[in-house]
Order: sequence, then structure tokens, then C-alpha cells
Amino acid sequence: MNSKAAQLRKLINSKKLEFLMEAHNGISAKIVEEAGFQGIWGSGLSIAASKGVRDCNEISWTQTLQTAEYMSDATSIPILLDADTGFGNFNNVRRLVKKLEQIDVAGLCIEDKLFPKTNSFIDGEQQTLADPHEFAGKIKAAKDTQKDPDFSVVARVESFIAGWGLSEALRRAEIYLEAGADAILIHSKKNTAEQVLDFQSEWDNRCPLIIVPTMYHATPTSVFRENQFSVAIWANQIMRSAITAMQKTASLIHGQESIAETEKQVISVHEIFRLQNTQELKNAENAYLKPSAKKRSEASNQ
Amino acid sequence: MNSKAAQLRKLINSKKLEFLMEAHNGISAKIVEEAGFQGIWGSGLSIAASKGVRDCNEISWTQTLQTAEYMSDATSIPILLDADTGFGNFNNVRRLVKKLEQIDVAGLCIEDKLFPKTNSFIDGEQQTLADPHEFAGKIKAAKDTQKDPDFSVVARVESFIAGWGLSEALRRAEIYLEAGADAILIHSKKNTAEQVLDFQSEWDNRCPLIIVPTMYHATPTSVFRENQFSVAIWANQIMRSAITAMQKTASLIHGQESIAETEKQVISVHEIFRLQNTQELKNAENAYLKPSAKKRSEASNQ
Amino acid sequence: MNSKAAQLRKLINSKKLEFLMEAHNGISAKIVEEAGFQGIWGSGLSIAASKGVRDCNEISWTQTLQTAEYMSDATSIPILLDADTGFGNFNNVRRLVKKLEQIDVAGLCIEDKLFPKTNSFIDGEQQTLADPHEFAGKIKAAKDTQKDPDFSVVARVESFIAGWGLSEALRRAEIYLEAGADAILIHSKKNTAEQVLDFQSEWDNRCPLIIVPTMYHATPTSVFRENQFSVAIWANQIMRSAITAMQKTASLIHGQESIAETEKQVISVHEIFRLQNTQELKNAENAYLKPSAKKRSEASNQ
Amino acid sequence: MNSKAAQLRKLINSKKLEFLMEAHNGISAKIVEEAGFQGIWGSGLSIAASKGVRDCNEISWTQTLQTAEYMSDATSIPILLDADTGFGNFNNVRRLVKKLEQIDVAGLCIEDKLFPKTNSFIDGEQQTLADPHEFAGKIKAAKDTQKDPDFSVVARVESFIAGWGLSEALRRAEIYLEAGADAILIHSKKNTAEQVLDFQSEWDNRCPLIIVPTMYHATPTSVFRENQFSVAIWANQIMRSAITAMQKTASLIHGQESIAETEKQVISVHEIFRLQNTQELKNAENAYLKPSAKKRSEASNQ
Repeated sequence: MNSKAAQLRKLINSKKLEFLMEAHNGISAKIVEEAGFQGIWGSGLSIAASKGVRDCNEISWTQTLQTAEYMSDATSIPILLDADTGFGNFNNVRRLVKKLEQIDVAGLCIEDKLFPKTNSFIDGEQQTLADPHEFAGKIKAAKDTQKDPDFSVVARVESFIAGWGLSEALRRAEIYLEAGADAILIHSKKNTAEQVLDFQSEWDNRCPLIIVPTMYHATPTSVFRENQFSVAIWANQIMRSAITAMQKTASLIHGQESIAETEKQVISVHEIFRLQNTQELKNAENAYLKPSAKKRSEASNQ
Repeated sequence: MNSKAAQLRKLINSKKLEFLMEAHNGISAKIVEEAGFQGIWGSGLSIAASKGVRDCNEISWTQTLQTAEYMSDATSIPILLDADTGFGNFNNVRRLVKKLEQIDVAGLCIEDKLFPKTNSFIDGEQQTLADPHEFAGKIKAAKDTQKDPDFSVVARVESFIAGWGLSEALRRAEIYLEAGADAILIHSKKNTAEQVLDFQSEWDNRCPLIIVPTMYHATPTSVFRENQFSVAIWANQIMRSAITAMQKTASLIHGQESIAETEKQVISVHEIFRLQNTQELKNAENAYLKPSAKKRSEASNQ
Repeated sequence: MNSKAAQLRKLINSKKLEFLMEAHNGISAKIVEEAGFQGIWGSGLSIAASKGVRDCNEISWTQTLQTAEYMSDATSIPILLDADTGFGNFNNVRRLVKKLEQIDVAGLCIEDKLFPKTNSFIDGEQQTLADPHEFAGKIKAAKDTQKDPDFSVVARVESFIAGWGLSEALRRAEIYLEAGADAILIHSKKNTAEQVLDFQSEWDNRCPLIIVPTMYHATPTSVFRENQFSVAIWANQIMRSAITAMQKTASLIHGQESIAETEKQVISVHEIFRLQNTQELKNAENAYLKPSAKKRSEASNQ
Repeated sequence: MNSKAAQLRKLINSKKLEFLMEAHNGISAKIVEEAGFQGIWGSGLSIAASKGVRDCNEISWTQTLQTAEYMSDATSIPILLDADTGFGNFNNVRRLVKKLEQIDVAGLCIEDKLFPKTNSFIDGEQQTLADPHEFAGKIKAAKDTQKDPDFSVVARVESFIAGWGLSEALRRAEIYLEAGADAILIHSKKNTAEQVLDFQSEWDNRCPLIIVPTMYHATPTSVFRENQFSVAIWANQIMRSAITAMQKTASLIHGQESIAETEKQVISVHEIFRLQNTQELKNAENAYLKPSAKKRSEASNQ
């Protein structure tokens, strides 16, 4: 099988529209893989939210990587990690890339905002952009650091988010492409695809374009396909469905003071065991615990 | 407000049946609190499952505590942490208690199995019990270590799980109580409450009794109340409902190649922001970023 | 005994010159305490150096705190942690203070440079200062966050390091004091005490002044005492002596292909055991491992 | 250059006596490399001691690996990590090997004692051995898990430490070799080399033999060479020399209330910068911070 980095590179360079589905911990990543997706978006918002913290670098970058590591360990499809601004300057990005490759994350996406970042969708939050040349230095540093030539560096352009127009977005994308970006993620918080379509029509496929249709969710996927976007990222729906379910279940059980009704609605404990690959452990016990040792172990104490 | 440890102690000693609801990360803990629960069960199974690993100490005890820390930071109700066997001997338990108090976890539950443990519900898994006196040494060590007198140490008796009868369960519970346990968790994997009811009828409230009705979920809660159990732990339903929802959502989006339908079924991105307490940050920005600084910050780079 | 925070506060407010000695891990902290020092400087340079990384935020703030935690666990005297710029903005500082209090670090020192910082003593490194009002917001945020009123927030003024004159240093110190700083650390890289003496003569004890005489090491301590400095930090000598010794020992053993000579020059393995407090564990084994359990344990397997 | 795993394998299989020198953090590892050693012993005792904790698994295995990661990042020579008992059963060993390979540790050494272990040199500490067949399962699991065929698994025989005779040591070594061990580490706490020489004379080079002459330090290295041991590990002298120096320095500075004398005895701050490879960062700043960006950066705030 191809390496995870090669798999992600193939998705990004594919001539047809591909999809990355958000995950935020090991189990959601595994679920995304089992559903048939070919790649995972390691969402910064979802990873932060899952821990109960805000999406403004409240947890450290190594804490984010700990989660990415569980996700990578639990799956065989590639992860593109949302790495915010790179968590510092070019030097922090260099260390980040080294550590991501060690845990077999296939690529990272960095955005041209300032550290600590704030989420792009928060109402009334004024976003300040990084100097594009300083940001390009981060991209170049990432590309020079990666050992696996297939590792991907995606540059996320936040111009539209910050209130700038098309020309600034194009200017920045051009600088980032020149610095070595493998793809451009053009971000928009409009509830129509207008901005990203405008961008694509000017950009003219100079490199693969990635979009995040969270806010313009009503746009038919066919529109993205026809306009030759490379990848659409479904960026937070797994987390949102989990929250929805957990809120309902917590309320139901609290109200009824019983789990009887919930029991009928949810997967069994044995399905958790299956997702955890418990059977593999049983097989391994047979291989690595000799009968005699097994018996003595059972009679012993810690 | 009372300390978290005092809140948990009050629940355990309460004359009426109380409930702990499972959570496994910061957001689920927050959801459990918002639903009205007064305490959280930090489930070992769910914490492991959320990371995509098995419930047999595949992650280190400090990795488990990292998750407990996020849960504690995100909530104001107490957490009883499922601490497996204590992750080693009495000395490991001492260090564990110190670290749990530092992150404001209100109590821990340890079980009389061997490290590394295996989940009590896995079919055909032979469970080996710890020497009860060695286990009692862990309880005593925990009690001697805690700084806050309200911190709770719950002793989980796995005799029924391991196939032993009532007298062995009672013998062990007696030893653990004598060693200082604040409550006994009597565990059973039967699909009726028979074992725990038998135990309670003999135990006769020598100390608070805690149960985990995962397998005997059909038993009406009134039965637990009438038999004067102290606490019922709903031990994994939040995780199971999250998995159920994530599986459905992942399949739906993969099949439709669209998020349009999911959008109607799940909470909004803004509800995530609310759960993360984003408004508090905005208020704090006004308090701590002086107008001049704010303006300069917006014009600056990293 | 007073809390660690109260101990540090007392040192800072003491009318006579006090000293903090650098440490960078648990064992060096313990050694500093055993030598008779009443407080520890958790040096950012030394902590980074001990890990083999540079002093420019290459490790995450949680990795730094992991080390501070070991240091705090190993000692009973207070630690003032060198927290660089606070590792982000005011919001990161809030989280930092919460986490420092949890691990019983007595105070933090933050400096008015930009994240990621670079060490103040590197030749030819141009240092850029933070906006003083934004930095003051960090101090205020720290003071508002601390739960223990004795926790100390020290503001480190880097004006001299960045090439500015006395008036800018005084202007900044005034702003930081007004924001709530418990002490000002006035830093200088000159090889005489000229700058810090000039500052003190103008500052006139408006609040306790802390100095770091690394570069002006030849200035007699009596000069600091006469000029009523509050605390002198010996900021990296423990690390430097350890490196010196390790280099010599590594060379000696490599050259001789023998440890025989080294054996005569270094403390015994038993002295390591004493520093680790091994005797306490033996005593605890007697208390918590019942004879029967102990015997069974010795006969058993994992 | 050969991979680190290949380098270690070459040392182990070399026909002449090779040496591994202890290190316990990034800087000591770097110092060992600069002294000319070709491999590093990641000592469990020294790593624990450096953190101020005892050598009985008080820190978690992931905390130990964090230190091994710094050591690996700081060096280009291979590390053989002292992994105690493997930190659990065969399944924990499998996870451990995966994680060690990710951080480019070249091999691990596991010992046939029980978790949590205690240091082999503590007086009067009764040591209990693992069932040799269960231990062999760990070795087999490690060998089956490693991806790089050059990764080394060393089996440490603790029979002599536990008070058993030569035949038990040989029996165990034979079982471990059969299970796949790449080398046997035969341990002894005698102050002469008698036991290891007896073992070697019977073992007759069935596989490479490794020794740790901490207690029989007076035995000339020529004896090891003549008896065809493969590797001698100098297991804790770097740590012991660092402690010796830190104790002296702390006392000196405390007594003199001055750093003036210490200054003459220790390496300079600039030597720390050199060890941290600060020059590389300066070069990188020129490559990745464009002049314009650099200028703007210097005028900006966080």
C-alpha cells in the first residue's frame, strides 16, 4: 500500500473532486475511515472543542499533536492536519513538520493569520493577517524540512475572512505557491460559494484548490466539481453530530433516571470493542502468552 | 460553592440514590454538567475508546490524566475517575492521588485486578484478581496520600466478574472497607441485578454501595433506590451515543457527497462556540487588550 | 510551614538581598534546596538547554511545565518560573497561571518581548519589544487569574537588552507596576552593573527590583545589597557546571575506555538513591505491602 | 549515513568490544556524542533521577519516552533505551516498540523483572523475576512489531541480581535468545566481574553479550575485551558527574553569595548556545525571514 503521505498527495493532485472528512480523536478518525472516506481533516476547531477549550491556541501544539497521534495510530488513511498558523514562526514550523512526519501525519495546513489565532467563523472577530512574505517563509521552511517528498504543505488564504478582496487573495496565493505550497486552501465564511468561485475563475488551476464549504453548505457539490476544485473538506460535521447526540442522550438519561430507553438507540458495548480491535488482542495473547505463562499469570498478583 | 471533592463526598454519602454520568473528554463532561447531572464518571473504557485504543492500559496513566484534566477544567461538578488497578502498585497509587488532586479530580475508583487490566465485559476473557491484602495496601496508601479529606477512594470489587461467589465478594469488600475505602463499587456483568442485590442484602449498608448497571440496564431504577444503593453509574452511554451518531453522519455524508442534509440535523457551529465559552474570551479581550494595543496588534505580524 | 507562594512572596518583599538559584530539572532543584537556597529560578535557557533545544520556544509551553512539575514535586522551596513572553497573549497567560498554581509553582516571570522569543544574550540578535500596554494586559490577566493571593507575577523589562535607554525602561516598569506586577526584573547584558544601578537610582524602590547578574558577574554582591535590590538571580550556573562536568567525564571515559578513574571523582550510586529518597519507599513498603501480600508478590509474575 | 538502528546493530554485532555511554536528557546525549562515543545508553536510573523521582516506574512510560525523544532529536548516534520490564505485558511492549521507532530510538533493553520494577542495586531489595516464558513472549512481540529489521531488542537477565545461580541465568538467556533477542545483557551487582565471566565462559558467544560494569568498575577493560564481550555500558557516570558538580557549585555559590568564582570554573553561556546549535537558527533566519518581513516583524507586537 502507498504511504499515507503518498495517498494524500494523490488525493490533492487527483483530477476529480475528492473529500476529506473531519475527525478529532482516534475513534472518530476510525469511523471516518470505516465510512469509506479516503482522507481525514484533523480539524483545529474540533480537536479544541473535543477537549472543551477554545479554538485560539489554548492548548499547546504538542497537545494537539498528541491527538493527531492517536488519530494516525487508529487509521490507515491519510490525515491533513489543521495546524493553525504553524504555532509560531518558521522555526516552530520546522519542528512541527519533523514531529508530524514521525507520527505519520500526511500533511499540514497552515493559515496566514497571527499566533494565537482565533476561529475564522466567530462573529465580529477582527482577523489580522500575517505578512505574506513572512508566511511564505514558513511554507518554504516546511518544504525544506520534510523528509518524505510526498508530505503535503497546504497554504490557507484567510484574505476573504479578514475582509479583503479578490486581488489580495490572489496575490497571497501566488506568493505561497511560489514558496512551495502543494495546494491552496481558499477560505470563505460567506453563505454562498461566490468568493471561492471568483477565486477559482481567476486562479485557473495554477495549483490544486481546496475549499471548506461549512458556511456555504447549501451549494451543490456538483458546483465544486464543475469548477474543478481539487478537494472539499467537510470540516466539523462529525463533531457536531456527536455533540448533538451527546446532548440528547445526557438529557434523556437525566430526565428518565434510567438508561433503558437509551440502550435501544445506541450501539452496543461490543461494537466499541470491535472498533478498538479487541479481537486482535485476543489473537495476540495466544501468540505471545505461552500456556504455562498464561496459567501462572492468572494465579499471580501484580 | 463546595469544593468538587466535597460535592462528590456528599453524593456518595447521600441517603438517596444519586447518579454519575459517563464522560470521556472536555466537551462530553461539559454536556453532562449542562444536562443537570451532579457528578461525572471518568470512564476508563470510554477514555480509551475515544482515543481509538483498547481498554487494557495501552495508553499511559499520564495520558489518561491529561484527559481527566481537560474534563476537570471544563466543568464545575465533581469527577470520579475510573483509575483501573491504580496503574501499578501502592506507590504508583500514591503518585496518582497527588496528581489527581492537583487537577481537581474529586475521587478515584480502583479495581482489584492485575495490571495491565482488561475490560470486564469482554467475552471469554479470564480475569485474575489481585491479592486482597495487597489491594488493600493501595487503598490505605491512597487515603494516607490525599491532602483534601473530602477526596474519595472507591474500591471496586471484581469478584463476580472473575467468576467467584458472594462470600468472596463480601470478604474482599470487608477488607477494603477496613483499609479505608469510602465506598464499595460492586461490579457485575449479569443481565439482571441479581448479584448486586444479593450483595447489598448481605452487606447491609456497612458503607455506601455503588453500582454500574451497564449489563442489567433493564432493571428499573426504583429497584436500586429501594435497595438503598448509594450511586448508580451510567458508565458509557454518552460515548455510545456519540459513536452511533458519528457512524450515521459519516455514512450519510460519504454516500451523499454533501453536507446539506447533515446540516439540518446537527447543532450549529455557533453552538460549539457557546460550549467553548467564546463570549467570555470576547469580554476578556476588552478587559486586557488596551485599545491602543489592540489596534497595533491588528496591524502587526507574528 | 508557609505555602511555596507565601515563601516566594516573603523573599521578594524582604528588606534584605535574597537569592534564587537556577535549576532545570528535578534533581538540580533538589540539589539547590539541599545547598541551603530558599528559592529556585526555573530558567528558560537552562530548561531548554537541558533538553538539547534552543531557547526560542522550540518546546511547547506544556513541555516546559512538565519540567517545572518535576522540579516542584522534588522540592519544598518555591520556584519562580521563567515563562518567557507568557507563550502567547493575555489569554495564554491566564491558562498558564492556572496550570502553574496546580503544580505549586510559586510565581512566574514574563518578559516584554515577542513570541517566539530569542535568548537575550545571543550576540547580534535584534530584540523586538512588545507594546507595553499589551504586555501590561498580560500582567493584569495573570493577577486576575491567580487563586492564591501570594502567587507572584514578575515583569521583566527588556528595554536595555533591546538597546533602549533608561527612560524607556522606567516608562515600561511604571506601566507594569500599575498593571499589578509584584516585582520588576530589570535585565541587562552589560558586563558591569551600570544599567541596573542607574535604573535603581531612578526607580527608588517603588516596588521590589530583581536582577540577573549573569553578565556582570564580577560586580560584588555588596553593591547589590547596598543599592537595595530585592533579589539576585544566579540564572544558569548549575546548568553550566553540569555541562562542564559532563564534558570532562565523557571525554575522560572515552579516552581511557574505563570508568575506574571517574569512579573516584563522582558521587556514588547510593548518593543518587539518597537524593531520590529511596529510604522513604522502603518504609512505605513495610506500611502498605502486607507480609502475606509481599510474599505472594515475590512469587508472582506480571 | 546508516540509520541509527543500523549503527546500533553494527555495534552489537561488532567483533571488538564497543561502548555505550549513559545519557539522560538532550544535552547529555549531545555531549556524549561530541566526546566521540558511537552509541548512547538511555539509562532508566539516570532518566528517573534527573527528574527527581525514583527508579521504580514512578513516571509513566510516555514520560520516559518524551525524554528519549529529546535525546534522539539532539544526536545522530544511536540510543539503546533502558525500558525496564517493558512497562507492562507483551501488549505494552508492542506499543512501546512502535513509539520508539517513531522517535528514532535504535533499540530497547527489557529486563525479566516485574512491573513496577525496582533498581537492581538497592541494598536489601528482594527482586522477583518474571516467568521466563512470559518474558520471552515480550521479546517475540517486540521482534514481530518492529518495522525496521535493524531495530535491536536486548534481553536483560536479572538472575544474578535476584540471587540465583549460573544455571538459571543460562537457562533464561537460552529462552530469550530462542524468542528472538538480538543480544543478552547479563547483569551483576558483584564488585568483581566473576559472575559475568562465568556466564560468558558457558555461553560461548551464542549471541552478543552486553555487560554493565557499574559495580565491578575496577575490572580492567582488557578483561572484557579478552573475554569477547560485545558491548560494555558505562551506565550512569555522566549523571553522577553532573550531580557531583551541581552539588559543589550550589554549595559554593550559596556560601559565597557570589558567582564570581564559579564563573571561572564553568563553561560560558556561549558554549551553551553552541551546544544548542544557535548558529543554525541564525542561518535559517536569513533563509526564511525575508528582509521586508524581518523588518516588519521587528516593529510589531504579538
